[in-house]
Amino acid sequence: MSSYPPPACLLQPIVIPPRQLFGPGPSNMRDVIAESQSMPLLGHLHPEFLKVMSDARQGMQYVFKTRNAYTFAVSGTGHAGMECAMLNLLEQGDVLLVVEIGIWGKRAADLGSRIGATVHTVTAPHGSAVEIEAIREAVEKYKPAVLFVCHGESSTGVKQPLEGLAECCANHGALLLADTVASLGGAEFRMDEWGVDCVYSATQKVLNAPPGLAPISFSEKALHKIRNRKTRVPTFYFDALELGNYWGCDDQPTRYHHTAPVSCVYALRSALAVIAKEGIDEGVSRHKENAKFLYEKLEEAGLQCFVEEEKWRLPCLTTVRVPDGVDWKGVIEEMMKEGIEIAGGLGPTVGKLWRIGTFGGNSNKAKVKNVVASLQKAIRKKSN
Amino acid sequence: MSSYPPPACLLQPIVIPPRQLFGPGPSNMRDVIAESQSMPLLGHLHPEFLKVMSDARQGMQYVFKTRNAYTFAVSGTGHAGMECAMLNLLEQGDVLLVVEIGIWGKRAADLGSRIGATVHTVTAPHGSAVEIEAIREAVEKYKPAVLFVCHGESSTGVKQPLEGLAECCANHGALLLADTVASLGGAEFRMDEWGVDCVYSATQKVLNAPPGLAPISFSEKALHKIRNRKTRVPTFYFDALELGNYWGCDDQPTRYHHTAPVSCVYALRSALAVIAKEGIDEGVSRHKENAKFLYEKLEEAGLQCFVEEEKWRLPCLTTVRVPDGVDWKGVIEEMMKEGIEIAGGLGPTVGKLWRIGTFGGNSNKAKVKNVVASLQKAIRKKSN
Repeated sequence: MSSYPPPACLLQPIVIPPRQLFGPGPSNMRDVIAESQSMPLLGHLHPEFLKVMSDARQGMQYVFKTRNAYTFAVSGTGHAGMECAMLNLLEQGDVLLVVEIGIWGKRAADLGSRIGATVHTVTAPHGSAVEIEAIREAVEKYKPAVLFVCHGESSTGVKQPLEGLAECCANHGALLLADTVASLGGAEFRMDEWGVDCVYSATQKVLNAPPGLAPISFSEKALHKIRNRKTRVPTFYFDALELGNYWGCDDQPTRYHHTAPVSCVYALRSALAVIAKEGIDEGVSRHKENAKFLYEKLEEAGLQCFVEEEKWRLPCLTTVRVPDGVDWKGVIEEMMKEGIEIAGGLGPTVGKLWRIGTFGGNSNKAKVKNVVASLQKAIRKKSN
Repeated sequence: MSSYPPPACLLQPIVIPPRQLFGPGPSNMRDVIAESQSMPLLGHLHPEFLKVMSDARQGMQYVFKTRNAYTFAVSGTGHAGMECAMLNLLEQGDVLLVVEIGIWGKRAADLGSRIGATVHTVTAPHGSAVEIEAIREAVEKYKPAVLFVCHGESSTGVKQPLEGLAECCANHGALLLADTVASLGGAEFRMDEWGVDCVYSATQKVLNAPPGLAPISFSEKALHKIRNRKTRVPTFYFDALELGNYWGCDDQPTRYHHTAPVSCVYALRSALAVIAKEGIDEGVSRHKENAKFLYEKLEEAGLQCFVEEEKWRLPCLTTVRVPDGVDWKGVIEEMMKEGIEIAGGLGPTVGKLWRIGTFGGNSNKAKVKNVVASLQKAIRKKSN
């Protein structure tokens, strides 16, 4: 008799209640994406799978608006993109400047210090972005190796503008690194035109694919830095040059690096096809239009956006001020009973706001109307 | 007009030919696992999803044969398990001793040097394991902080015995780290009984789930080392204590760490349920029995196992010597035309051997017979 018996819980069927996911992600999969997930596996080096990767790579170049050869997906969820970017771009002793307007800036600063970089931050109050001029001054002052900017700060619902930063970075030899986990496809982003040196994102937001991959792209300038490091990248799994080879970004024969999460790559490819069919610009416009519709509905319901300046609002993730006397957590629980997810704050914004994600297929007027109606009903129930 | 047009390839449907995957992994998914992949997503912190994680966690304890609290899955494919183990257990300047009998030992040595450890190796010719006595001597000589052993060396088809190493490690303050990516569920493994301090595996071999997660477990002794590091773990994504909290391994409330690859966790849970239903010991016996059957069929076909000593053969991955005058690559291509995958060597074993994986549901007499028949036919076609 074994002293390690099979756990009884595994002998029960798996139970997944249906959910309308209007939190900060994961968002709901589209049917075509869900179906691609159960397609038969291929070997991670089979030509037919390398073709799926190549298609996905072209799709990522399309959504990032870049011609960078080193455009691929890291085999991990969104945060793995941050790790891959920073572990490759930074060495011990390098200066990292972080535009810190919420939890993601904090994370980047934390990771920078783990790597052994000297970290400086430039901040703004929660709910605001940092003015470009203030970032420029900080770049001049600290002369960082890397400037980290979170384009879509999902803890506050702020879109941090990126235009105008590249020139200043270039003047001081800094690389411009952008986190677009929560913004890509839902807010305008132009890698090449804006001079971004490294960008990463995730699959489970606007792309409507399951979490599991982090699309990423490196400019030639970023690669130059990586190729001329004084020390080796302290990780093999996230080594950008090795990953780039696996994804067909260089002109060398494909080497075995690691086993890609095959089903996730199928899903990413399917998700990018959905975006290609609609058009990336058309999708961004739809997110903006439906965000405006959401602001109207919220206003009609007597609710206020947390981000006051409309230009700084992230179109695919809206933050809503919790009115005085309302049990914010009770509201979320009440809505969850109806199968609708919205989220509370994250880190310092807990208790101050709700977060409503309208990612990809969930950016839709009828759905927006329904979420606001459910929120209103829940607030009525959960007010003093 | 956009200068970044949607890639034409994405407007074509995705094409996945059916494959019988008898290479070194990924293996074929079982239907129940494939179906679980297209189940609707849940939020990564929804109670129903935390329940799925908890079920999976108990399943991982069951297959590792451990009661370690810190048993969870890293959100990346097999190699991410190695990274998580080594980045947490090693600090700059630590001594790492690697039992190097193929590509995985080389990788561990490479990663150790990236981390800044002093790396020593103890080796055996390809196709053999290192005798326990030789490992013991090396541990006494180098007094490593960590001893790395690959239990199932998939580049040569060797099973490296682990029993008897723990005492020697303990005597010299070394932690015993085992890679069971290619062996778990297909060869006997007893974490607690054998005194292994850290083990990791992958989902796409015997478990028959898609690649995407790396089950891992840390002993109390391993955690003690991690909790008393002089420097912080140089990564956040792979930080074992943070991951452990997310997976419910400590008694603190769950903090948000990262977004787990939700669908992959469903698949892992389904895969572990399949193993629990059969019984881990019963599954291991089946793999052994069908491996013996494979050896017989190969012998009948006039073929030789690459690993001469049967005690050192990995039951779920068999390596076969390429006979003189046979075009090894042509044979693989020929079989692929019939939709059957076997693989060539990896690294130094390229051209010397074929690798036949019989993982999970593919460890089956009828399938084994079919693969050998196909191999024989292909050899006849591709001989001088």
